[in-house]
Amino acid sequence: MKKRPALTQLSELGEFKLIERLTGDLHMKQKSTIKGVGDDAAVIDYGDELIVLTTDMLVEGIHFNLVYTPLRHLGYKAVVVNLSDVYAMNAIPGQITVSIAVSAKFSVEGIEELYSGIKQACNNYEVDLVGGDTTSSMSGLIISITAAGTVPRDRIVYRNTARENDLICVSGDLGAAYIGLQLLEREKRIFEAGSGVQPELTGWEYVMERQLKPEAPRQIIKNLENTGILPTAMIDLSDGLSSDLLHICKQSQKGCRIYQDKIPIDMETVKLAGEMNIEPFLCALNGGEDYELLFTTPLEDHDKLAKLKDVHIIGHMTSPEAGTAFVTSEGSQIVLHAHGWDALI
Amino acid sequence: MKKRPALTQLSELGEFKLIERLTGDLHMKQKSTIKGVGDDAAVIDYGDELIVLTTDMLVEGIHFNLVYTPLRHLGYKAVVVNLSDVYAMNAIPGQITVSIAVSAKFSVEGIEELYSGIKQACNNYEVDLVGGDTTSSMSGLIISITAAGTVPRDRIVYRNTARENDLICVSGDLGAAYIGLQLLEREKRIFEAGSGVQPELTGWEYVMERQLKPEAPRQIIKNLENTGILPTAMIDLSDGLSSDLLHICKQSQKGCRIYQDKIPIDMETVKLAGEMNIEPFLCALNGGEDYELLFTTPLEDHDKLAKLKDVHIIGHMTSPEAGTAFVTSEGSQIVLHAHGWDALI
Repeated sequence: MKKRPALTQLSELGEFKLIERLTGDLHMKQKSTIKGVGDDAAVIDYGDELIVLTTDMLVEGIHFNLVYTPLRHLGYKAVVVNLSDVYAMNAIPGQITVSIAVSAKFSVEGIEELYSGIKQACNNYEVDLVGGDTTSSMSGLIISITAAGTVPRDRIVYRNTARENDLICVSGDLGAAYIGLQLLEREKRIFEAGSGVQPELTGWEYVMERQLKPEAPRQIIKNLENTGILPTAMIDLSDGLSSDLLHICKQSQKGCRIYQDKIPIDMETVKLAGEMNIEPFLCALNGGEDYELLFTTPLEDHDKLAKLKDVHIIGHMTSPEAGTAFVTSEGSQIVLHAHGWDALI
Repeated sequence: MKKRPALTQLSELGEFKLIERLTGDLHMKQKSTIKGVGDDAAVIDYGDELIVLTTDMLVEGIHFNLVYTPLRHLGYKAVVVNLSDVYAMNAIPGQITVSIAVSAKFSVEGIEELYSGIKQACNNYEVDLVGGDTTSSMSGLIISITAAGTVPRDRIVYRNTARENDLICVSGDLGAAYIGLQLLEREKRIFEAGSGVQPELTGWEYVMERQLKPEAPRQIIKNLENTGILPTAMIDLSDGLSSDLLHICKQSQKGCRIYQDKIPIDMETVKLAGEMNIEPFLCALNGGEDYELLFTTPLEDHDKLAKLKDVHIIGHMTSPEAGTAFVTSEGSQIVLHAHGWDALI
């Protein structure tokens, strides 16, 4: 039997050596990165484009559970959720900073696993890791990532600029990350009950990947530009379609009307939701963590949109007086509420 | 007796309402801030200047102790330590993002106290709070701040560009924050021992303020520019003079020679260090958290430097072969080591 290699205690290294070990192999890929890790601050040259800046914090026990989340996937996801916000401004991410706080229960090798996921995301999305902070925590792991990106002045897209009669579109499919999480939680409970039953995850690879290792909507931003579509408003789907669409409505001072039949839901999501006695459309409306784009476009873009792969028109903006309406398959009308993440739990 | 007003549980508000309460009164002051809080990302217009980006994470129980740290001061300091890094690039900070994770033990009013310090620092330094994240933690308070700033292309100053014979300078005085912390820790121990003795802090206001509510070296950056001095290398003093000077030496591949007699130490630091049986110059060398600037300048700038208030020439850079030397008041020579924060504890 092969002996498992001994793990390195964080205290054996100290902060500077740990940073060296984690970032020593970084190669900057962005022309705009003038200076990465190693000074008081990173230095970036964006010429005269607009800069977008966004940040997210992930806390163990709140946002992730290491019982079923591989550290490598977690690192990857932590980057992706930030890049998703950059794309939602119609911008292209260029750099990230990564701060982590870790308790003594983590080994150096564990942190390297986390960073291997972070670096893989940086490679896939051509983003440079240019700085950060590494410190101790009293309990568990905390990851705080900030992403910076750029966009030409005439192409920035906000949330508060949707107009009456604009088409409402989403990319990809919704609800999968949420139902994937329910599956992982269910199997964890069964496993922890000590029945000796191994988790049964076969056949649910898509929904699990959407939960554990999501991707950011880079391609859709490229496709929109190539097709000559500039959205009138845009947001990334992180809190759930209801909550995020209501942000656009509230900030744009408009109403909306979306149709249950138009909401894209993958067959695996539908099947698993059925097995778990959850309405699939509720996963899509309130689940969250989809990291797809929700955007509005002028009505005239209808034909261009029809040609786009992975983009679905789910309704249209209305006057504020018309309210925020969800039209069910049976034709009845429900007022959209922001349930967000906790609604179905 | 006045009744203490009831505190608001965080769970009563929810994330969106908490963010609204914390950021509802923000007014952007920077012309470069196009969009602050309220979209997927902040939007910044820096024209074609270089951008610097830096981040720091503060963890309760590791970086601060709420027994003697007022939340308002903590918020102020959390901003200042980041701005200090921006100034150390010879840049001017413009925007920050603030992410916090808080456990259920904190009230809404407590978080507002923290933010009042954050906002006060933003006001004093003319920096805009443009985004962030607010989440729960399993235990204690974690604050992660990212600061962005700008600098004209020909004025950026790195750590790795010090040259042989350059003068080594520091701003302000050193060691005060460290001895201030020792005082607070000592009084905490006495108080906790239950002797009924109230903490005796009178007369030590300066060193306590340097620990609890430090300022960033903004004025010195302005003064250097006004005097026509462009440092050859610069770093902010956060880990201690030894450690930070060794960063410049290592990254510039040079040696250094600094003199004990030249190191600026405030009389209050000297007095309190004496009372606590610590060598004052060790506080200055290894204490850390000074948030002053350490920089090198061409020898020709000597006369200009002499006219600058609050700037002290403490030595000069040498060839790498000459090593990193600290010359004591008695004239003996000691090799500088990076003890950092833990050295004296």
